Amino acid sequence: MNVLLISAHDDNASFVAALQYSALSVFERAGHQVSVTDLHAQQFNPVAGKLDFTTTSVEHANYMFNQQRASNTGSGFSPDIESEMQKLKAADLVIFHFPLWWSSTPAVVKGWIDRVLASGFAWSPDNKYGNGLMRGKKALIVTSVGDPQSFYSPDGIHKASVPQHLYWLTHGTLAFCGFDVFSPQVIHNITAASQEDLEQELEKYRTRLAGIENEQDYIYKHASEG
Amino acid sequence: MNVLLISAHDDNASFVAALQYSALSVFERAGHQVSVTDLHAQQFNPVAGKLDFTTTSVEHANYMFNQQRASNTGSGFSPDIESEMQKLKAADLVIFHFPLWWSSTPAVVKGWIDRVLASGFAWSPDNKYGNGLMRGKKALIVTSVGDPQSFYSPDGIHKASVPQHLYWLTHGTLAFCGFDVFSPQVIHNITAASQEDLEQELEKYRTRLAGIENEQDYIYKHASEG
Repeated sequence: MNVLLISAHDDNASFVAALQYSALSVFERAGHQVSVTDLHAQQFNPVAGKLDFTTTSVEHANYMFNQQRASNTGSGFSPDIESEMQKLKAADLVIFHFPLWWSSTPAVVKGWIDRVLASGFAWSPDNKYGNGLMRGKKALIVTSVGDPQSFYSPDGIHKASVPQHLYWLTHGTLAFCGFDVFSPQVIHNITAASQEDLEQELEKYRTRLAGIENEQDYIYKHASEG
Repeated sequence: MNVLLISAHDDNASFVAALQYSALSVFERAGHQVSVTDLHAQQFNPVAGKLDFTTTSVEHANYMFNQQRASNTGSGFSPDIESEMQKLKAADLVIFHFPLWWSSTPAVVKGWIDRVLASGFAWSPDNKYGNGLMRGKKALIVTSVGDPQSFYSPDGIHKASVPQHLYWLTHGTLAFCGFDVFSPQVIHNITAASQEDLEQELEKYRTRLAGIENEQDYIYKHASEG
């Protein structure tokens, strides 16, 4: 299996970094091929713009149309986007590691989505959801949350679960592109957790990853073609 | 009234730019004070990091804790963040204009939220939702959407409405900080719209803004203190 591990952490001592390193270790020991996208270390630019394309258009700038045009011409994306696309193309499984900020991804993760999951590459007007261009690949969201799980319940202050808040990502983005989407790995109450609690969470995560090739805990799965 | 208009567009001929200019025109003609945040023109950096603080910490970097520390010391944020905080402090009404990308904000808008709505400034562990530090201010989300409204319904491909997809923002972010949150202005079907359709949408938006001081169409409103 080819695995792409994406991480948003700007400190190697952070828990998100530990999640990413745990995943790297599990997959490498099991003999899988692993690619890494370390968004902060790469200084990944999250702002979509005209320089994302190797040829300029005199047309009024609609970013999505420019993505389609760049895809259709074959080699039209800037090198930083192209490099991520190559890793994604090779991947059978993509895992995103990030701290939950404002019940969503940090901006740098959203920028990877905005720029890399381009129209014509990850999806097209005729290729969405069950027919998305990422069909056959799997995706997993792994996120650390400061607040306890009770805050993320119908009676809690945030009114909905973390997976419900992330629906734009799991459904509106990943399923849209054709990924089969696993149930997210949500680690709550990070702010108050002891070192021992965190170690336990890492162990739970490693155990899950060790069995992920056979896991069936999907929140979105396309019908198989049989 | 003091109004802060935030916009994410990288082309002045775009519809999002037209929404922002429409708002500017309505409020200036009515004699209100208006501040503008043009995220692309300002080249706003959306990536939270250690350089966001004027003093460095030797502690393990937890961004939120560093925000609290910077707030408590009084003048601890980088100039680009401080400048946005001053505009926000003065504002009675904040309006966000952006294209809906992946059923969410573009990364540059998320980065403004990550960096400017800092712990200790917009909220604190003791100041959330009804008690948030932005209490007394109002917020409005204005977004243009390529897909028709039918795609954003329980029977549509995206399964939920745009305001439901944006719940992390309207509830989990803006209401969390204490804003009263108006029902979002969602303009669907932009991709297929004629120039005349777009003009009509701008006119509807201008009409709404002309009456916004008395509008009661909130999706979240804190109990008044009487």
